[in-house]
Amino acid sequence: MSNHRIVLASRPKGEPLAENFRLEEVAIPVPGDGEVLAKTIFLSLDPYMRGRMNDGPSYAPPVQIDAVMGARTVSEVVASNSPDVAVGDIVLCDAGWQEYTVADAKKVQKLDPSVAPVSTSLGVLGMPGLTAYTGLLNIGQPKEGETVVVAAAAGAVGAIVGQIAKIKGCCVVGIAGGPEKCEYVVKELGFDACLDHKSATLAEDLKAACPKGIDVYFENVGGKVFEAVLPLFNPFARIPVCGQIANYNASELPPQPDRTPILLAAILTKRLTFRGFIVSDYWSQYGDFQREVSGWIRDGRVKYREDVVEGIGNTVAAFQGLLKGKNFGKLLVKM
Amino acid sequence: MSNHRIVLASRPKGEPLAENFRLEEVAIPVPGDGEVLAKTIFLSLDPYMRGRMNDGPSYAPPVQIDAVMGARTVSEVVASNSPDVAVGDIVLCDAGWQEYTVADAKKVQKLDPSVAPVSTSLGVLGMPGLTAYTGLLNIGQPKEGETVVVAAAAGAVGAIVGQIAKIKGCCVVGIAGGPEKCEYVVKELGFDACLDHKSATLAEDLKAACPKGIDVYFENVGGKVFEAVLPLFNPFARIPVCGQIANYNASELPPQPDRTPILLAAILTKRLTFRGFIVSDYWSQYGDFQREVSGWIRDGRVKYREDVVEGIGNTVAAFQGLLKGKNFGKLLVKM
Repeated sequence: MSNHRIVLASRPKGEPLAENFRLEEVAIPVPGDGEVLAKTIFLSLDPYMRGRMNDGPSYAPPVQIDAVMGARTVSEVVASNSPDVAVGDIVLCDAGWQEYTVADAKKVQKLDPSVAPVSTSLGVLGMPGLTAYTGLLNIGQPKEGETVVVAAAAGAVGAIVGQIAKIKGCCVVGIAGGPEKCEYVVKELGFDACLDHKSATLAEDLKAACPKGIDVYFENVGGKVFEAVLPLFNPFARIPVCGQIANYNASELPPQPDRTPILLAAILTKRLTFRGFIVSDYWSQYGDFQREVSGWIRDGRVKYREDVVEGIGNTVAAFQGLLKGKNFGKLLVKM
Repeated sequence: MSNHRIVLASRPKGEPLAENFRLEEVAIPVPGDGEVLAKTIFLSLDPYMRGRMNDGPSYAPPVQIDAVMGARTVSEVVASNSPDVAVGDIVLCDAGWQEYTVADAKKVQKLDPSVAPVSTSLGVLGMPGLTAYTGLLNIGQPKEGETVVVAAAAGAVGAIVGQIAKIKGCCVVGIAGGPEKCEYVVKELGFDACLDHKSATLAEDLKAACPKGIDVYFENVGGKVFEAVLPLFNPFARIPVCGQIANYNASELPPQPDRTPILLAAILTKRLTFRGFIVSDYWSQYGDFQREVSGWIRDGRVKYREDVVEGIGNTVAAFQGLLKGKNFGKLLVKM
């Protein structure tokens, strides 16, 4: 028995390549006093991880070279030196990209599989769901009858943003990659429309889909989607800035002339509010979020989809696909 | 006796040229029932007027070709067909760039010259002062000990922003054009420092002047000042976007690569709040503003400076100078 883990071998320039990572086989660690040994069941892959691969200042420190890539996991306790956690308990912890971890028993969070499938604690009822809920409600502040545009609408965050905006009585237009995702977003998730960002006429398509302009844009993409959205903002529109996945692999600025003056002029003349946020800014709303979204899931008003990849050996390829929009739903690696 | 007025002869491309305007001599208009004839004493020149010379949608309609350029004025009533307004009253009205206007008596606002010099109703106690007060307090929300950076610090708005930020206990760094203005901003207005935006080392100068980073940036300039400010924002910094004077005459985008991704990444990772505003969004705070700022002027805590040009014939040149930062204090034309 051994532990397989993936470490950061070198920092990617642009797209992460297989050679930037190293799959290692090491001994299973031994828990000390007050610690547990946890075996990973599900590992969450999320776009923010691309930022952690870079050096330089950000809101969280980078992953060090030769260190295990970080990730939140759902794990099973297989050994415990704490009276508070029993073998067989299913817990949320931060094992990273590996099969086993030792964790402080005080820092793991027990999950109750009878309440919801445990994988949801990494998705709709976890960090991505909280991101959607808090960013939309605190910053987007959607009002009945307004138009809300959601990028990456089939993704773990976007899907929840749009469904909550529908519950709030908004007209909701998604943007996603390809006809299959767009169909899912409209037919399954109940958005009013969904546009394919691969369309050559995205800007025109979006204008047609938003005849009353855009009041809220949940920004997690950047790039050409953002360019299509910018001209359509109504006065006093709100833009929660949650991610910039289109730019995460960029190693150079776009060669087109600097459009910053256009953006600042729009902010000024349309009185736009752009506000960036990180989910950890809103931990205090976790209780409200869980209660409310769990209720909506039970009522069938919020649906979710998971894209589950099997085995640690497929983790790097799955993450590479995530940055290209190849996943369809919340991306998880099942061990 | 006749009325001299300046009309928009053609729309400027880039910098407004003398040929874009026409000085006309016309008959003095005759007030109807309920109207007054008002003779301009002071005419306010403000950067936003550049935007009104352009066609195309904005927050206010453009000035039509052959129409009188708009402006708020302090005027003396020289004829009245209303019992509410007497000949000799000094009023605030919207005469535009001309010597005489006819106005609805209900729409002029009487001024009391014993309370404050009437010119201040176009500056520190008028629209520029309200812009400074509401933008800083509602959006900037400066807290004691924070660092506030103010562009165009010797201008009608910036000077008031910085002095209010000092009253709120902040470290205040101004940016202005040339050593004379910078000296005035520090010695007269009491800012902690003021940097010359013409310096080749502006970015380094600003970094040195803001050792604890920037918490509030009152943005009314854009361009290279904004570029110098952007890297220095602290997490959760607030940026009221009030103007973009560096770009008002621009007819092309800057040729450098598109920096929008840098701006959006900063908004995201530093959780910045950019919010545009127009002074009219905050008319409801006019009473609080007047009471509070009048008090600060009486106490000597807020100082102001006016740059008075004489005669309607100098209006166009004065406005051209305003866009180049040639004025020193609130720019007024005295008839």
